[in-house]
Amino acid sequence: MMDYTQGKKKLEDWVVSEMEYSPDSLGKCEAIMSLGNGYMGLRSGTEEPYIDETRNMFVSGTFNKAFENEATELPNLADITRIDVRVDGERFSLEFGKTNNYMRQLNLKTAELTRSFDWVSPLGKDLRFVFKRFVSLHNLHLIGMKMEVECLTAPVQFSFESGIDAQMNNSGTQHFLEGERRIFDKQFIQLVQTTNESEIDVVINTSHKVILNDQPIEQDPNMKMNRRKVWQSYEVELEPNDKLAVEKLTTLYTSRDKPVDNAAYSLDELREQSLQALKNSVKEGYDLLFKEHQKEWDDKVWNVYDFEIDSEDGFDQLAIRFSLYHLICMTPAHDDRMGIAAKGLSGEGYKGHSFWDTELFILPFFIYSNPEIARSLLIYRYRGLVGARKKAMENGYEGSMYPWEMAWPTDGEVTPIWGDIDVVTGTQTKIWPGFIEQHISADIAFAVYQYHNVTNDYKFLEDYGYEIVFDTARFWASRLEWNDEKKEYHINGVIGPDEYKEHIDNNAFTNYMAYFNIKLAIHYYEKLVKENPELLGKLEELLQFKNAFADWTQKVKEIYLPAPRAKDLIIPQDDTYLQLKKMDLSKYKNQDRVRTIYNDYNAEQINAIQVSKQADTLILLYLLEQTFLHGDPRLTGKVKEANFRYYESKTLHDSSLSLTTHAILASDIGEKELAYSLFKKSTEIDLGPKMNTSDMGIHAASIGGIWKTAVFGFAGIRLVDGKLKVNPALPNHWNRLNFTIQWQGQPVRFSITQSKLSVEVIDRKTLIFENDGKLYTCEDTINISIVAANSES
Amino acid sequence: MMDYTQGKKKLEDWVVSEMEYSPDSLGKCEAIMSLGNGYMGLRSGTEEPYIDETRNMFVSGTFNKAFENEATELPNLADITRIDVRVDGERFSLEFGKTNNYMRQLNLKTAELTRSFDWVSPLGKDLRFVFKRFVSLHNLHLIGMKMEVECLTAPVQFSFESGIDAQMNNSGTQHFLEGERRIFDKQFIQLVQTTNESEIDVVINTSHKVILNDQPIEQDPNMKMNRRKVWQSYEVELEPNDKLAVEKLTTLYTSRDKPVDNAAYSLDELREQSLQALKNSVKEGYDLLFKEHQKEWDDKVWNVYDFEIDSEDGFDQLAIRFSLYHLICMTPAHDDRMGIAAKGLSGEGYKGHSFWDTELFILPFFIYSNPEIARSLLIYRYRGLVGARKKAMENGYEGSMYPWEMAWPTDGEVTPIWGDIDVVTGTQTKIWPGFIEQHISADIAFAVYQYHNVTNDYKFLEDYGYEIVFDTARFWASRLEWNDEKKEYHINGVIGPDEYKEHIDNNAFTNYMAYFNIKLAIHYYEKLVKENPELLGKLEELLQFKNAFADWTQKVKEIYLPAPRAKDLIIPQDDTYLQLKKMDLSKYKNQDRVRTIYNDYNAEQINAIQVSKQADTLILLYLLEQTFLHGDPRLTGKVKEANFRYYESKTLHDSSLSLTTHAILASDIGEKELAYSLFKKSTEIDLGPKMNTSDMGIHAASIGGIWKTAVFGFAGIRLVDGKLKVNPALPNHWNRLNFTIQWQGQPVRFSITQSKLSVEVIDRKTLIFENDGKLYTCEDTINISIVAANSES
Repeated sequence: MMDYTQGKKKLEDWVVSEMEYSPDSLGKCEAIMSLGNGYMGLRSGTEEPYIDETRNMFVSGTFNKAFENEATELPNLADITRIDVRVDGERFSLEFGKTNNYMRQLNLKTAELTRSFDWVSPLGKDLRFVFKRFVSLHNLHLIGMKMEVECLTAPVQFSFESGIDAQMNNSGTQHFLEGERRIFDKQFIQLVQTTNESEIDVVINTSHKVILNDQPIEQDPNMKMNRRKVWQSYEVELEPNDKLAVEKLTTLYTSRDKPVDNAAYSLDELREQSLQALKNSVKEGYDLLFKEHQKEWDDKVWNVYDFEIDSEDGFDQLAIRFSLYHLICMTPAHDDRMGIAAKGLSGEGYKGHSFWDTELFILPFFIYSNPEIARSLLIYRYRGLVGARKKAMENGYEGSMYPWEMAWPTDGEVTPIWGDIDVVTGTQTKIWPGFIEQHISADIAFAVYQYHNVTNDYKFLEDYGYEIVFDTARFWASRLEWNDEKKEYHINGVIGPDEYKEHIDNNAFTNYMAYFNIKLAIHYYEKLVKENPELLGKLEELLQFKNAFADWTQKVKEIYLPAPRAKDLIIPQDDTYLQLKKMDLSKYKNQDRVRTIYNDYNAEQINAIQVSKQADTLILLYLLEQTFLHGDPRLTGKVKEANFRYYESKTLHDSSLSLTTHAILASDIGEKELAYSLFKKSTEIDLGPKMNTSDMGIHAASIGGIWKTAVFGFAGIRLVDGKLKVNPALPNHWNRLNFTIQWQGQPVRFSITQSKLSVEVIDRKTLIFENDGKLYTCEDTINISIVAANSES
Repeated sequence: MMDYTQGKKKLEDWVVSEMEYSPDSLGKCEAIMSLGNGYMGLRSGTEEPYIDETRNMFVSGTFNKAFENEATELPNLADITRIDVRVDGERFSLEFGKTNNYMRQLNLKTAELTRSFDWVSPLGKDLRFVFKRFVSLHNLHLIGMKMEVECLTAPVQFSFESGIDAQMNNSGTQHFLEGERRIFDKQFIQLVQTTNESEIDVVINTSHKVILNDQPIEQDPNMKMNRRKVWQSYEVELEPNDKLAVEKLTTLYTSRDKPVDNAAYSLDELREQSLQALKNSVKEGYDLLFKEHQKEWDDKVWNVYDFEIDSEDGFDQLAIRFSLYHLICMTPAHDDRMGIAAKGLSGEGYKGHSFWDTELFILPFFIYSNPEIARSLLIYRYRGLVGARKKAMENGYEGSMYPWEMAWPTDGEVTPIWGDIDVVTGTQTKIWPGFIEQHISADIAFAVYQYHNVTNDYKFLEDYGYEIVFDTARFWASRLEWNDEKKEYHINGVIGPDEYKEHIDNNAFTNYMAYFNIKLAIHYYEKLVKENPELLGKLEELLQFKNAFADWTQKVKEIYLPAPRAKDLIIPQDDTYLQLKKMDLSKYKNQDRVRTIYNDYNAEQINAIQVSKQADTLILLYLLEQTFLHGDPRLTGKVKEANFRYYESKTLHDSSLSLTTHAILASDIGEKELAYSLFKKSTEIDLGPKMNTSDMGIHAASIGGIWKTAVFGFAGIRLVDGKLKVNPALPNHWNRLNFTIQWQGQPVRFSITQSKLSVEVIDRKTLIFENDGKLYTCEDTINISIVAANSES
């Protein structure tokens, strides 16, 4: 099981550990200890195989649609992690024999995975094993592995097989043609994979160095090829105290890689270059390569983000580092044609597709911490306009209607159509969000707004942002439905963030966000009229939206925006939610698995109950105050509180997006203990003891949410009307919170204790911010006493 | 390990047993204990999963070419055999806890697979398990499974998951679109698979009946769907002495099935019918369904073939029954569009393709034992003329050039192009037989000759046989190359049966068989001129071979037929073999795996050594005497003996086709002990102790060869010039051999001891046969004293 008691000691706030081999936690450890560098992700399957393991290796952006009736997805590449070890002819496995001193650790600081134990084989032979592995942040194409074996008491015949296995697939779906295999110089193994539809070439090279007591062994390995496989086998006699080390280095290149994805591309060259790259790495060796990788993590991550929590519970510090670690692993910072997947690169879940999770739950971290990456992620969405326009057209709308799930930017909508079982009819359920969960277009417009306000990056607006905002506004304007009885515009037949309510009318979140999107377009339009009519002219020509501005200004006033009910301040989530029947939901709350309600009810039945999958109206209350709606009476603390209490009790948190929003809101309304406990729960989605929560991959949005809760919730950082507000409300369990954000071009360092807020502008450029209703102008460092916990932002 | 000591007791000559769970014999037991009925084959993977297991289920004839660059093959269907059992939450596996009284048995008589043991879980709970399984011979679409669990000492929470898993594939290659899944009435699970290229629909239905102490349990199962999977889970509390029984019944239909493979076909109907079929079976239940199946095996197999060996070693009787059992399992007797695969339906090896193995090593069993099935198999070849013509044309020849590997009859050549590693260059080796192993066309013509002579089935000749023989003769006539220096026809650049010699000239086997093929065509032609000029006219019109007869008669006289060398009577295997360098081959003989020579040499190097993969010239010596070459001086006992001794020492038996031919020849030359030991070795290819020989599937040709060695070798049955010769040479270890063959329309029963040959014509129709040079006319029963062992046929 996972162990965090360690977290109490400072040094070990960096380490996620498993203290005992547990067959039921295989999937969990594979995912939460997964390695990556944004270019690729490598699930942490163990070297020796186990039943129910899942080996995954993905390269960002290599989408393929294997069969006509399946969705495009990130294909699972050939496996290079499996090593079949035999000791005196018996298969090595921790399920046999006796294991002592077991420890599996992901060191977040060094981004190295290690596993060590002593193993006594069923025949009684003692060996000490140490396995090490990293996916280089220094060389994005490199994977290093090392296996160290010490013979303890009696001589053994030690043998292993290792190579490249392209029999892998995505839950049965094979994306690759059978590719060429080759071994150069009896040492360098090369396997080529080509996707069957998108025709992306992947070249994998691997090599073994076998060292006995510091001397490379002379023996040539046995070489084998099989269907989609090529491997070598070695056999070594070990005497007591002999130390065997096997370094397995792998390089991985694809025809999607930026330098080669052009007209001059040649597979033969890619093969040659990638092989040469491996040969160069082999000359360096594991230890040197690892040092370069570790330095990169320090230079590019830990020394930059600089996030410290001094908590009664060291686990909190670990959790935030875990969050930062995975944010780096999952993000294709190197290529603006690629987005972040809902499971990062750590599992097959959601097929590597990007959802609104990115803009609302992950992007804020990059906007505030590494705007260059945020920019790249938004350019990915800009490139997605092609697909968004296609989707709008196919649905009879104008402008850009973003796909609910997005893969390669030009693919358009890629949400699968059929899902899990309907327990009532026994058929597969239809997955509706691809058709009717439409708020994502406004969520992306919101992200443009937020990015621009925090960074002041006008160039981005000009090159990309305006176009996104205008074209999504056009979509909404065409999407609005006039209700002649009420004399207002409605948005009917949608799914809001709460996916347990399908085909509903006037989802509050959707209506407000559509309203926001159009308002923002009007705002930008007016701004351009004044400041840059030339650009506006170009955009008008490009987008052909001559009459749009008039359309927007007329329609936006008449959009129905559900107000809090007079009697209890509840904002109706949609037209019918508050009239649905209520039910005791305790059976479905806090289960080991999510979505247990589907074991008893089908979608139609769930649609008729006041039960929510995740935050919906609540996320609205949190988001809106970051926009021009600030000051709106709909946003008073009382409304927040009333809605929090109403909806929280009906929410199963069956989406990982839910808890962190609730935590921030709880903090906002002064429920400090509740906020902290919701934060804790959100950190446990991946790091907690429930064994199967992460089987399909880590929860990218929840991981982004951990950072968000700390910064937006407990540190109380908010962007409101383009201004920085800082109203900390540290949990009582925390002594100090230190972190740095990037604000309009300069790093700003915050240090927060229970009694003091310290703000330092690193570049000594003037920063104006608001705390507790007062404005401060900071040109160096400002220390502010915190009198009492703020109950409201 | 396998145990045959049991075989000593009469009753147990029917049972193949594994006495102890052995992780290294998984593949072997899966294959040799596989179940089948010719319609489908089910590899005997265990219910609970193990690392390195291979689950396979194939339906004959459902070929699909998944990717452009792979060969068509029999796709591995969804798995229905896996059942995931948990005991008090712990996964059940024989690799944990303690197992007593283990026994896994394939009962050849009842064609039922059983597995029983007592298992103490790691937590100390005792359970008794019995698993049963059959693939019905009565209802070709039905699979029955049963799991019985008895709780022994302490209460346990017993749970299992079971359903249909279509994540299966062929070593990574997925042949099926993701298909629809559904559960009817919370009980009947249905999954549809459609091949991506050949567009064959497969509908699989499965159902569970859970019975606790003879009462069906009330509980509804949990129902789950996942990508390509649908399953149910059950949980039962067991008290000591509780007996749980789970019956899992499955039906399996495809759009290739004969009644539905026509214009009126509808998938919806197939789904409905197959579901109804399952419902009907469920009403009967496992026990009744099993009885029907068992009766079918008695009626259609054991009481018909009636094969008894009274040997010092009961294993011999078991081996022949094992041979008959698998011949039934692997043969698609129900459909003349389908052939027999080199691994039957028991593994992925050779992709379900038919080779010459069928005609030379398997078909003889059916010709002599069940001519109707032999006829069906030859009609499959007749249908293959389409592909054979295509191949001839593509290669610039006339007539029909049969594919080296054949799948669906119209597919033509389907041999893969790239194989295992070349240890010298590190590249994949090219697989040449699809291009240049050409003798198969003559082997099929030979099979027509043999079938007709043994059965007297003129109708077959008229409808199919003449066309095959004429068109293959045309191929050979166009294939011959005139050598102007020697003034004779050569056949250059081929591979003979010995595949260790590639691109050779004048392979003796090939030249003689081509000669035979043309001679046979001439013979048939002349016969038709006399007896049926009308049919001949039709065939001439159809095949457009007006001038062929003249061409044949002219060329056949000038084909180079290598004669035995004067000095030592050796027939040169090809133009260069006898000049190649000799080498000590002991390192590569009798290895646990075949083809070990490839670890040290590549194909080019092996080509330059006097080493053979398998019988080549020897098979010629055995085959030719069954034809009009009988009486030829090239077939004297001395020639046979000289060549046997020469080539046997150079043959690695790296093909399973090799040993039984050698055994027959050894028996022919009077080497009784050697013959018996070669027979023993051939039975051990699948049934012996070597652990990995059968991983990719049983050896169909070797299994046919076991019967052949007994009947053609030890019983000395031969067809010579259309006449039956019987010259028994029982091994000294055998007391009696009883069997029945079908000879020209009637069953003939042979009973052979060391001193007596007894022949009985069951239908009392006159049979003329030759023994020891004398002719006998049998109208009832004839007993002949055997004076001494015959040393020559």
